[in-house]
Amino acid sequence: MTKVYKLKEIEEVLPEINLLREIEKGFIEYSLGNTVVPPVGELLFKRPPGDVHIKYGYIKNDDYYVVKIASGFYENPKVNLPSNNGLMILFSQRTGEPLAVMLDQGLLTDIRTAVAGAIVAKYLAPTKIKKIGIVGTGVQARLQLLYLKDITPCKEVIVWGRDNNHVGIYKTELMTKGYHVEAAMNIEELCQQCNLIITTTPVLSPLIRSDHIFPGTHITAVGSDTEDKQEIQAGLFAKADLIVTDSISQCNVRGEIHHALKKKVISLKQVKELGEVIQDRRLQRTNDDQTSIADLTGVAVQDIQITKAVYQYLNQ
Amino acid sequence: MTKVYKLKEIEEVLPEINLLREIEKGFIEYSLGNTVVPPVGELLFKRPPGDVHIKYGYIKNDDYYVVKIASGFYENPKVNLPSNNGLMILFSQRTGEPLAVMLDQGLLTDIRTAVAGAIVAKYLAPTKIKKIGIVGTGVQARLQLLYLKDITPCKEVIVWGRDNNHVGIYKTELMTKGYHVEAAMNIEELCQQCNLIITTTPVLSPLIRSDHIFPGTHITAVGSDTEDKQEIQAGLFAKADLIVTDSISQCNVRGEIHHALKKKVISLKQVKELGEVIQDRRLQRTNDDQTSIADLTGVAVQDIQITKAVYQYLNQ
Repeated sequence: MTKVYKLKEIEEVLPEINLLREIEKGFIEYSLGNTVVPPVGELLFKRPPGDVHIKYGYIKNDDYYVVKIASGFYENPKVNLPSNNGLMILFSQRTGEPLAVMLDQGLLTDIRTAVAGAIVAKYLAPTKIKKIGIVGTGVQARLQLLYLKDITPCKEVIVWGRDNNHVGIYKTELMTKGYHVEAAMNIEELCQQCNLIITTTPVLSPLIRSDHIFPGTHITAVGSDTEDKQEIQAGLFAKADLIVTDSISQCNVRGEIHHALKKKVISLKQVKELGEVIQDRRLQRTNDDQTSIADLTGVAVQDIQITKAVYQYLNQ
Repeated sequence: MTKVYKLKEIEEVLPEINLLREIEKGFIEYSLGNTVVPPVGELLFKRPPGDVHIKYGYIKNDDYYVVKIASGFYENPKVNLPSNNGLMILFSQRTGEPLAVMLDQGLLTDIRTAVAGAIVAKYLAPTKIKKIGIVGTGVQARLQLLYLKDITPCKEVIVWGRDNNHVGIYKTELMTKGYHVEAAMNIEELCQQCNLIITTTPVLSPLIRSDHIFPGTHITAVGSDTEDKQEIQAGLFAKADLIVTDSISQCNVRGEIHHALKKKVISLKQVKELGEVIQDRRLQRTNDDQTSIADLTGVAVQDIQITKAVYQYLNQ
């Protein structure tokens, strides 16, 4: 029998699950070449504008395979619906049976992205985090911060966003969750005060300039996941001691690193894959003066691992 | 809210729906170029052997898009499970919301394939059908025959299968449904007696030879859907007055027609697409001496149309 889980059920169990551990395992399998993840399927719509991505794959010799369908319809807020939607389906790798349909409305994608940010911080953030800089005020601006709680006790946050209203709402919301949040006047101010910076915006021209960043800073960029989007000036990569991506093959064609590669600021062999970094201490931060940048465009193994983890928790 | 329909609910409403009309509409939209159907996604498994196909697409300016996940795990019968499984998901083309998950276990794929056979027979079968020849004894051997009931009153059936046991079971089952079924000793005998022949086997070397077929016969081939499979000798296409496929682009790379094209027995411009044939009387059978062959490899628009039809019936 196929089980069907609704958003609320999924939401409730997430805090009970060690997602960090499960998704780390996924990154390791991915970097070891033990995953099968074909190219993403895509459907595009014009009126109203929307895009749908179908990601699917499995870890070899595992019990499951996963198919995720995720959509963004950007005029949805006009009719009081969230832009993003989607679901995950878990199947048996032995019989093909659909074991579970997770009607998560895109939540699991948001969470697995935030968890990847936490994993990156675990291995690359400076020992002592002064303040956390959050660029953007959307879903990832919230979740990335919240999922850092297991990595650092730091509750000092500087936020920057283009829309003052959104910044205000963000501040209020995160203050009630025990953070001390200040709004930066500009990106430069944020970069001066923070040594752990998370960028979460879908901008097309860089917000963070090369001269904004001081040695000893770690930046995780999660906003750019296409060929065009770019949050960080390509030149900054020349200053980075550690450059990490969730997927070597993807960072060659999309995200921040791809811009730096194209401009020949760095070469691909300077870029390390997160699954390798997790396993090899030499690829992790070794001192607090290093500058590190992690660029996350998202890999299907995260979807596989989070869906499995939720299913297994609910069926233990 | 996403609705979830189980196999039984789906099964019950199918006889109430005019599937032929809906799937015909789909073929027309497909041949008019009004559908968006990206390449099929695929996952392959070795131990145990299995394959998964992900088909997805939409009709332009329609209300929906559909994703289908269909699997074949060929050792399932050892553990008393059917080889085929799968589900269909219907989404809104306006907001991306998943409207319905159809846990059909592959039934809708079987049915839409049978309905395509009936549509082909409607336009290409001889006016007077003497006997219906069924090659094979599996699911399509049953469904193709059953869905011909709206096209022809003929209840005289000749069946051929490699396994006498399966032939026996087939005979008994179809006799209880009002058919008069005889088993042929060989394919030649079947071809001699029948002027409407449906081939449903996944064989790798042709069963039907060029000299088996008399003028005035129509053949629908549904068994071959890969590059390798072949039920009909390529030479037979030289004798055909009408050659029809559900998809010009697919018949170029897989199925029966692709073998005939490769051997240069026919050229691609002799092949007509079902959606065109439905709309243009000149492309349909015009007399009972014509020999016609239709090769069906299955197109996603059939999945789109059957899923929509079931959803709309259940939500009217």
